[in-house]
Amino acid sequence: MSQLWIENGLFITMDSDKPSFRGHMVVSSDRITYLGEQPPAGLPDDTERLDGSKLAFMPGLINTHGHAAMSLLRGYSDDQNLQVWLEQKMWPMEAKYVDADTKAGTALAVAEMLKSGTTAFVDMYDRMDQVAQVTEQSGIRGVLTRGVIGLCPPEVQEAKLSEAIAFARDWNGKADGRITTMISPHAPYTCPPAYIERFVQAAHDYQLPLHTHMSETLAEVEQNVRDYGTRPVEHLDKLGFFSRPSLVAHAVHLNDEEIALLAERGVAVSHNPISNLKLASGIARVPDMLKAGITVSLGTDSAASNNNLDLFQEINAAALLHKGTSGDPTVVPALEALKMGTVYGAKAIGQEQTIGKLRTGMKADFIAINIDQPHYYPMTDMVSHLVYSGSGRDVKHVWIDGRQVLKDGSCVYLDEEKIKHEAQASFERLLHA
Amino acid sequence: MSQLWIENGLFITMDSDKPSFRGHMVVSSDRITYLGEQPPAGLPDDTERLDGSKLAFMPGLINTHGHAAMSLLRGYSDDQNLQVWLEQKMWPMEAKYVDADTKAGTALAVAEMLKSGTTAFVDMYDRMDQVAQVTEQSGIRGVLTRGVIGLCPPEVQEAKLSEAIAFARDWNGKADGRITTMISPHAPYTCPPAYIERFVQAAHDYQLPLHTHMSETLAEVEQNVRDYGTRPVEHLDKLGFFSRPSLVAHAVHLNDEEIALLAERGVAVSHNPISNLKLASGIARVPDMLKAGITVSLGTDSAASNNNLDLFQEINAAALLHKGTSGDPTVVPALEALKMGTVYGAKAIGQEQTIGKLRTGMKADFIAINIDQPHYYPMTDMVSHLVYSGSGRDVKHVWIDGRQVLKDGSCVYLDEEKIKHEAQASFERLLHA
Repeated sequence: MSQLWIENGLFITMDSDKPSFRGHMVVSSDRITYLGEQPPAGLPDDTERLDGSKLAFMPGLINTHGHAAMSLLRGYSDDQNLQVWLEQKMWPMEAKYVDADTKAGTALAVAEMLKSGTTAFVDMYDRMDQVAQVTEQSGIRGVLTRGVIGLCPPEVQEAKLSEAIAFARDWNGKADGRITTMISPHAPYTCPPAYIERFVQAAHDYQLPLHTHMSETLAEVEQNVRDYGTRPVEHLDKLGFFSRPSLVAHAVHLNDEEIALLAERGVAVSHNPISNLKLASGIARVPDMLKAGITVSLGTDSAASNNNLDLFQEINAAALLHKGTSGDPTVVPALEALKMGTVYGAKAIGQEQTIGKLRTGMKADFIAINIDQPHYYPMTDMVSHLVYSGSGRDVKHVWIDGRQVLKDGSCVYLDEEKIKHEAQASFERLLHA
Repeated sequence: MSQLWIENGLFITMDSDKPSFRGHMVVSSDRITYLGEQPPAGLPDDTERLDGSKLAFMPGLINTHGHAAMSLLRGYSDDQNLQVWLEQKMWPMEAKYVDADTKAGTALAVAEMLKSGTTAFVDMYDRMDQVAQVTEQSGIRGVLTRGVIGLCPPEVQEAKLSEAIAFARDWNGKADGRITTMISPHAPYTCPPAYIERFVQAAHDYQLPLHTHMSETLAEVEQNVRDYGTRPVEHLDKLGFFSRPSLVAHAVHLNDEEIALLAERGVAVSHNPISNLKLASGIARVPDMLKAGITVSLGTDSAASNNNLDLFQEINAAALLHKGTSGDPTVVPALEALKMGTVYGAKAIGQEQTIGKLRTGMKADFIAINIDQPHYYPMTDMVSHLVYSGSGRDVKHVWIDGRQVLKDGSCVYLDEEKIKHEAQASFERLLHA
């Protein structure tokens, strides 16, 4: 059994029992087996040792909403109205994707995520076998789901639903359990109610969680009211969506009743602050949601509307943005923002018993950050420094399931040179196809 | 005469005549002497050559408002109401500063700025001789000014004004012209009107620009109206402030008439989006200011309210924030945000003839960015990538006045190990003094 002893590191555990200390950690196989101020005793002589003295160790970050393969469209369309961006730029390019493009875009995104400290990601797209293969190879933890747009003839709806179910069933638990799956109708405004009910049924049949986009823009909320006589939260509730564990992305436009209902139903939210700003969708009521007890996690959304996948930037934005827009500098304090990127992320994907904290017995999904840099000095409150001054670029090593997947800033199981080259080639092919 | 030939680089010039191209640049002594697609001809054999093929080159960033020495207080007080932060945390610690602390904090800040691509910074603080010495040694370009709070007895006011004038007179043009100076009453709410008029007179006497904090919070605007019967812009205008070239920091709370008057008087603004968010001061009307023709540049403010000095983050925030709060995704497009950090910064400090662009004949203040990383792929619109996906951590080399001051990420003229150690020691002394 492989063992790793990290000596004399600064540990930011995100565990309220023992939040931060300088000391030691032992990883045995895929688990954390020791955490403490004193050096561990009784380790075999061949235990691998790592000097942690200039590093901070924390749980890996959890990105709870994205579309990895869209990283091929990074920088392809910015500063546009949503409809122009979507209808004239994104959709025509996405329509040209073949399997190789999805694979190239996903690999580019996963490399970027690993290099910036993300150890688990939620991905909603199509051609999901490609996404799953990259997930398996790279060593990252993935919560994968075929997102289905239902504005199509019944036979196409049928085929898409079957594909979504088959993917979720076939890949759940694969890659030593690193891959889990969800069921995802794309959004209330892109799926008729009866079609959404079939996804809900499938989630019950296969005991899977549900994921969807919800209330990202004011226009879609208004359309929901026009089409169905209710706002999206009540609409989904009536369709039974929240009878399964569910994660909704965006949740920008909510009224008080909707916040109360989401809290009551135990629905988790993926807050995507950068994407919401860039597309001018609005600013989610994060302080109110947190106050109501909703699990608010963080997502990057895709690189086409962000345009990067560094979750540290979402953590930073979550801490800053809601102070500025509420006028209250005490909301979303640093520790709460860091929890949104770790503990709450784990809870949002139903894995809070195994990841999101450094704790003995939990999975060894963790990252090492180079804090020996001017922007981490003076060394006062490291949680504050990570949130307000940190960056994914400061991540030096990453372990997932106890296995090192990033070493000195380089991916261990991915060929970065090949990935960059293939991403460029795919983009150019899409552009001229 | 030293010569440097950068071969086969990607140049983002910020010059509308020739915005972006792959090619060559030659630096001779402190100036750019060649820029073009074709290799330069007739260079001496001993010309230093640099392979630019995996780098992007752009003008150095210009940080137009900050208090470098406060980097010692990074992370010392976050998520607090402004008055608690200021009166219970900042002021008591700052009162304990001695020269060595100012020097240690400034050196830490300058190291961080150089490492993240800032080549010129505006600094308003006291013990400015210390700041000037660090500026001289480090190789950075500084626009330095003794900021004076005038809520004190007449003899103290007199002494502070004399000190501010002496500093501005003695250091202007020093360090081969890298240091220039300004005259700074701290703010309309901390300086009586008659006292501000004496700074204005001094600015005229010595032909220097003026710098001040203005309309950062709603409370100070309301106080200005109560105390003087006018809002800050009209108040400063009546005191003659805008009769000299002037740069105002923050300018968060402005009405339409104030925006029009600032534009008419040619006043430059230093927009500090992160600090304004973190302290919940509000959100400046940047799209309206830009539309009115005001020169809007970017500043970090101090590391105590940010908490980092990476100007790429301000550029990113400027591009994102105003889309989200205005509801219009087309405002502050990427190129405009990048101009705020370069061209408009140069204009804000009155140096637009010499820095802020890559152009033949201008000063060689420029940076090289490692774009051979996943988050810069696919290579589509590099301006978009720098703004929405870039970071100061990607900066590899920095030149100022044609002299390399950052090489492979390390400061050439500063001892980073010593700086980190001294910053930590200073902070601990302040904490226990």
